[in-house]
Amino acid sequence: MLLHLSTWPEVEVYLEKSKGIILPIGSTEQHGPTGLIGTDAICAEAIARGVGEGINAMVCPTINVGMALHHTAFPGSISLRPSTMIMVIRDYITCLAKAGFTKYFFINGHGGNIATMKAAFSETYQHLADLNIPNAEQVQCTVGNWFMCGSVWKLAKELYGDQEGSHATPSEVAVTQYVYPESIKQAPLSPDVGAGHSIYGAADFRRRYPDGRMGSNPALATPEHGKQFYDLAVKELSNNYLEFLAAE
Amino acid sequence: MLLHLSTWPEVEVYLEKSKGIILPIGSTEQHGPTGLIGTDAICAEAIARGVGEGINAMVCPTINVGMALHHTAFPGSISLRPSTMIMVIRDYITCLAKAGFTKYFFINGHGGNIATMKAAFSETYQHLADLNIPNAEQVQCTVGNWFMCGSVWKLAKELYGDQEGSHATPSEVAVTQYVYPESIKQAPLSPDVGAGHSIYGAADFRRRYPDGRMGSNPALATPEHGKQFYDLAVKELSNNYLEFLAAE
Amino acid sequence: MLLHLSTWPEVEVYLEKSKGIILPIGSTEQHGPTGLIGTDAICAEAIARGVGEGINAMVCPTINVGMALHHTAFPGSISLRPSTMIMVIRDYITCLAKAGFTKYFFINGHGGNIATMKAAFSETYQHLADLNIPNAEQVQCTVGNWFMCGSVWKLAKELYGDQEGSHATPSEVAVTQYVYPESIKQAPLSPDVGAGHSIYGAADFRRRYPDGRMGSNPALATPEHGKQFYDLAVKELSNNYLEFLAAE
Amino acid sequence: MLLHLSTWPEVEVYLEKSKGIILPIGSTEQHGPTGLIGTDAICAEAIARGVGEGINAMVCPTINVGMALHHTAFPGSISLRPSTMIMVIRDYITCLAKAGFTKYFFINGHGGNIATMKAAFSETYQHLADLNIPNAEQVQCTVGNWFMCGSVWKLAKELYGDQEGSHATPSEVAVTQYVYPESIKQAPLSPDVGAGHSIYGAADFRRRYPDGRMGSNPALATPEHGKQFYDLAVKELSNNYLEFLAAE
Amino acid sequence: MLLHLSTWPEVEVYLEKSKGIILPIGSTEQHGPTGLIGTDAICAEAIARGVGEGINAMVCPTINVGMALHHTAFPGSISLRPSTMIMVIRDYITCLAKAGFTKYFFINGHGGNIATMKAAFSETYQHLADLNIPNAEQVQCTVGNWFMCGSVWKLAKELYGDQEGSHATPSEVAVTQYVYPESIKQAPLSPDVGAGHSIYGAADFRRRYPDGRMGSNPALATPEHGKQFYDLAVKELSNNYLEFLAAE
Amino acid sequence: MLLHLSTWPEVEVYLEKSKGIILPIGSTEQHGPTGLIGTDAICAEAIARGVGEGINAMVCPTINVGMALHHTAFPGSISLRPSTMIMVIRDYITCLAKAGFTKYFFINGHGGNIATMKAAFSETYQHLADLNIPNAEQVQCTVGNWFMCGSVWKLAKELYGDQEGSHATPSEVAVTQYVYPESIKQAPLSPDVGAGHSIYGAADFRRRYPDGRMGSNPALATPEHGKQFYDLAVKELSNNYLEFLAAE
Repeated sequence: MLLHLSTWPEVEVYLEKSKGIILPIGSTEQHGPTGLIGTDAICAEAIARGVGEGINAMVCPTINVGMALHHTAFPGSISLRPSTMIMVIRDYITCLAKAGFTKYFFINGHGGNIATMKAAFSETYQHLADLNIPNAEQVQCTVGNWFMCGSVWKLAKELYGDQEGSHATPSEVAVTQYVYPESIKQAPLSPDVGAGHSIYGAADFRRRYPDGRMGSNPALATPEHGKQFYDLAVKELSNNYLEFLAAE
Repeated sequence: MLLHLSTWPEVEVYLEKSKGIILPIGSTEQHGPTGLIGTDAICAEAIARGVGEGINAMVCPTINVGMALHHTAFPGSISLRPSTMIMVIRDYITCLAKAGFTKYFFINGHGGNIATMKAAFSETYQHLADLNIPNAEQVQCTVGNWFMCGSVWKLAKELYGDQEGSHATPSEVAVTQYVYPESIKQAPLSPDVGAGHSIYGAADFRRRYPDGRMGSNPALATPEHGKQFYDLAVKELSNNYLEFLAAE
Repeated sequence: MLLHLSTWPEVEVYLEKSKGIILPIGSTEQHGPTGLIGTDAICAEAIARGVGEGINAMVCPTINVGMALHHTAFPGSISLRPSTMIMVIRDYITCLAKAGFTKYFFINGHGGNIATMKAAFSETYQHLADLNIPNAEQVQCTVGNWFMCGSVWKLAKELYGDQEGSHATPSEVAVTQYVYPESIKQAPLSPDVGAGHSIYGAADFRRRYPDGRMGSNPALATPEHGKQFYDLAVKELSNNYLEFLAAE
Repeated sequence: MLLHLSTWPEVEVYLEKSKGIILPIGSTEQHGPTGLIGTDAICAEAIARGVGEGINAMVCPTINVGMALHHTAFPGSISLRPSTMIMVIRDYITCLAKAGFTKYFFINGHGGNIATMKAAFSETYQHLADLNIPNAEQVQCTVGNWFMCGSVWKLAKELYGDQEGSHATPSEVAVTQYVYPESIKQAPLSPDVGAGHSIYGAADFRRRYPDGRMGSNPALATPEHGKQFYDLAVKELSNNYLEFLAAE
Repeated sequence: MLLHLSTWPEVEVYLEKSKGIILPIGSTEQHGPTGLIGTDAICAEAIARGVGEGINAMVCPTINVGMALHHTAFPGSISLRPSTMIMVIRDYITCLAKAGFTKYFFINGHGGNIATMKAAFSETYQHLADLNIPNAEQVQCTVGNWFMCGSVWKLAKELYGDQEGSHATPSEVAVTQYVYPESIKQAPLSPDVGAGHSIYGAADFRRRYPDGRMGSNPALATPEHGKQFYDLAVKELSNNYLEFLAAE
Repeated sequence: MLLHLSTWPEVEVYLEKSKGIILPIGSTEQHGPTGLIGTDAICAEAIARGVGEGINAMVCPTINVGMALHHTAFPGSISLRPSTMIMVIRDYITCLAKAGFTKYFFINGHGGNIATMKAAFSETYQHLADLNIPNAEQVQCTVGNWFMCGSVWKLAKELYGDQEGSHATPSEVAVTQYVYPESIKQAPLSPDVGAGHSIYGAADFRRRYPDGRMGSNPALATPEHGKQFYDLAVKELSNNYLEFLAAE
């Protein structure tokens, strides 16, 4: 079930049988010369909807913009500051918790979001406790990073080896090619690609990674690979969600 | 052009010929017994993309959650607090302004967003001036509310008269039916519907408007009407955008 | 009754018979070559006190500084940022709500305040609900803009036609002349006056409106006109307040 | 000169000969059974205007609401939280500093404001330095507390001895009687009055000081005393302001 | 008892017999050519632990960084902004109040902290009241400034007269020499030392006080003096703490 | 070199040869029935000072309180909210960056700090870029978690196997025993210890981990083990720091 395609009475009925909700979260940031700026949101959304459909779970509208400050020296990148993102997540969960949702499963498409999400969860638990919402103590949040699923990781290594890299990777590009086959981009990719540098500020990032890729060769991606990654991620995260729901 | 389906070099090229960008903004809130919770985001996104396609303008990913605190006593509604939303909009524009965008045309699907958006624009102009970004003084933001377009309003009155109401209206429901014909909902609608009350807090709102509608009869909506509204809004807002771009 | 000229036991007695309070809110901003910087606060305060006196309603001290960031390229203008103003209004209402006030009628002298005030009301309703103050759900805020009163508007059009303009208007200048006849200012006014431009940041505003006026000819103002506007605004807003109090 | 009764060109002329401005700041809080809720703002405003008139200094509109959280268990009291008040003062000074003012002389009527004002000054100096405003390093803020003037203190002790107390004092009540002789209040005053307790939260304060007075006997106040206090404070603070302006 | 050397069951036992806690707070800021950057934290910590040991009171870990923005033009100085420090103190007390502590005795080593601490206490009382923590109304905070103890002040005047000054004083340097005899620093001290200037921003401060001292001659300090100051401060503050605990 | 035992001229000299600084950060939180509440700060401080001493690096005063909201249902635990901690770290680095430090090496004793620290670094890079501090683009922050050092981890597994657990671990308790041999605590430890549960809010945490331990048996710790851990961590982190400094 997609929240945005549901009515409020349908949500009311849903809450009688489940307190769980899936929240796709991505980012709007450069993904190298051929990767889509929406890559992280596209992947998270597609996979989250796949999970929701398969196991009849409610899926929230996608958080399209995340924490990508280090990418903002490339045009088209948009980022929340961490302090803003904490308030955004706190606001989302506060509204949903008042309605009765207690199990929040974020399906995340961007490594840069993880730290701020965890900070936001801590801030939110405390905030809810201070509000004395009846079910505040039952609220639980977790993150499922599709690109860190064991099965996904294994396939990426098999298909791409070291050329998987860590940003603008062929695996994530492949998923976007599967979802948006009409938006497959071509551009010359320098064989020399920055890799292994630590991430600091935006200007520094662009100096180290001049075309935006981090050690990756997205030219290896195909839509068929994308379907494979999508299927693996949906399967693994579906299991993870069900375990999360079942846990006390 | 859709920002999320573009690469950063494509954005760089775009910026050479235009400094304008369209930002769809909606809300995630109850829309009565038959209206979709995502109605405002769905309409804003569809119309914004229609505008962008017709006149080759860049369209940002949709801001799916807006200022809907007064709807949050109905399950499934999610809202930012105004203070959070101001920071979100400030963060978006700050990133895009650093990349060179100066003309921000928000296509809005939710009346409840307007006040906070205007507050956010003021906050942002000041913030950018304090940062000494080169083009800070050129930054201009404006809102195009599709549901307030003269042509849309006229058609709504012709088709629905007083039954248009002011929330969960047949016109907005019609647009969602046109965009998502597979998600047309049916439910009994009481002929007695709250209308004309002022809007205060969430609990008060639900007391006055027990099924979420405000004076509307969404049963009048049809997908064909939706196409008409869509076409009118795209046409009128396209002109508005071009005038905005052309203005000094 | 003026709150600042009352004692706390008098407020206690007042609360036994009324939960309503009038809050005048203005701005401290340039009003062209002849308009007083305090125009918006002066008008709001005078009219609010007129209303309070006529119908025995409590009147709060005036909020003298509002949201006028776009005027701050002219010396003497002072503005809160919207995010600050939201916190100010939230703090005012939180204190007064704990004491038992539930009906907040802001009499406003500045169009630029409206958006931020509405944002602040939404933020405040939510905040009060989270505090579990007993009467939080009864709290209602509304804005009465004296310059938008139908009777005021009609007279302004009769007296000044198009020369009323939209900032540093003869109508508001007239009210200040009525209230402070000893502070009537004279200065040459260029017949060419900026008009019809959209409002963005402060530097941009001063470029478009070099002497601060927006399409107005304040030289038409007289203290006698001011008295007429004052009387009309007091009468109309008194009725508005009483209706607001009487409404459920 | 009163800022609110000036035009922006008059401010421009003023800035050619002085960079100083006087900012009256009071509070809106209970002052015992007979003291006016606006006492602190009334005194600060009257004295500030007296100073400004005598030495031709610009006087800002009064900040009517300050930091009075500990009084908020009495109806009619309104307070900013310290974190809000810091932002308010920062916003005021930022606007005025951009216009060229560098010497900020706050005339304060409320002891409870002092700590937060000092915190706000520190926050503001840092903020201005970060903005790279040309004259940021010249910005200087100071507080003149009229009730702590040596001459005022001496007279209060002579007239009232220990019955001066520390809140709702006869000296401040006398000043309000001088300014608003038509608002002199009478009420039985218990001879037993709380005194000497430390100040903590609002509920605690009301328990310790049940009628709001702190060791004072405001029945001793007369309008004639008020004039004496007013004259002394104006004289002493005028000298203080001139010394502040003259200092490097 | 030192909180950081206790276990949580030991704290639980402690709370059965006392609700009081001592919080040392210092600063990390320049103290002239020979004074340690940690002077204020070192003194506060040593004295607080002396107090705690003597009377069996719980001592919190030291807040090492306080409000020292005016010192930040000297390398090595670190400061919180006042708005940050208010949140830090609010967070500390909120955690401890939930555990049952109600009496907070801050032993402070830095004059520049006082205003912000007082602001923080007010903010915190209000915050706790809004949370409806059971014992919120019992929470009391106070500051004991060791350098303002009557006995300390008297000895400093006897030993150093006017050369005590007001920053990088021989008394505080002496205490650090007593605590860290291995870290006694030598450097030429100009006999001309800035004194008597008001404190504004950081750049201004460094201009007025070029070597960081304010009217002081820290060369007069000895470890033996330090022991005397330490003993006097521990004795006087121990009494103050016990009176604070005993007061209702 | 310890910053708090240095003078500002010594810092000035230091900056001529190094732009690096070590910041120990811990937490103040329950560590089971026998672990010290200050465990994380004690370990981070001792190890950071060991590193600084060995390689002549500047060491900042310890941040004693971190992000431990999930431990706050146990008395004695103190936590910053993530949003506060972000501001604290931003303030620290802003001050130090203005003085010329560019390489920030945090030595961390608490896993719960990591996410918020990373969020704070991102927030800070952006903040510094907006300030146009000359060396903003050179600022680099990194975290060295002593308990995650490969050599430490290996020894812990050898000594304790599965009884290392993940909170109140014998390895961290051992380090505190080495540093504070006089504060070794004894208490009966239930052989049944919670393990493997996810971490959510504070009340939930205490329910799952009733005595505060997470799968650990701290009774295995000895001061001798502590010395071994200390030595390994100092050695490994010293190398890490030097590599960090040497990296571009």
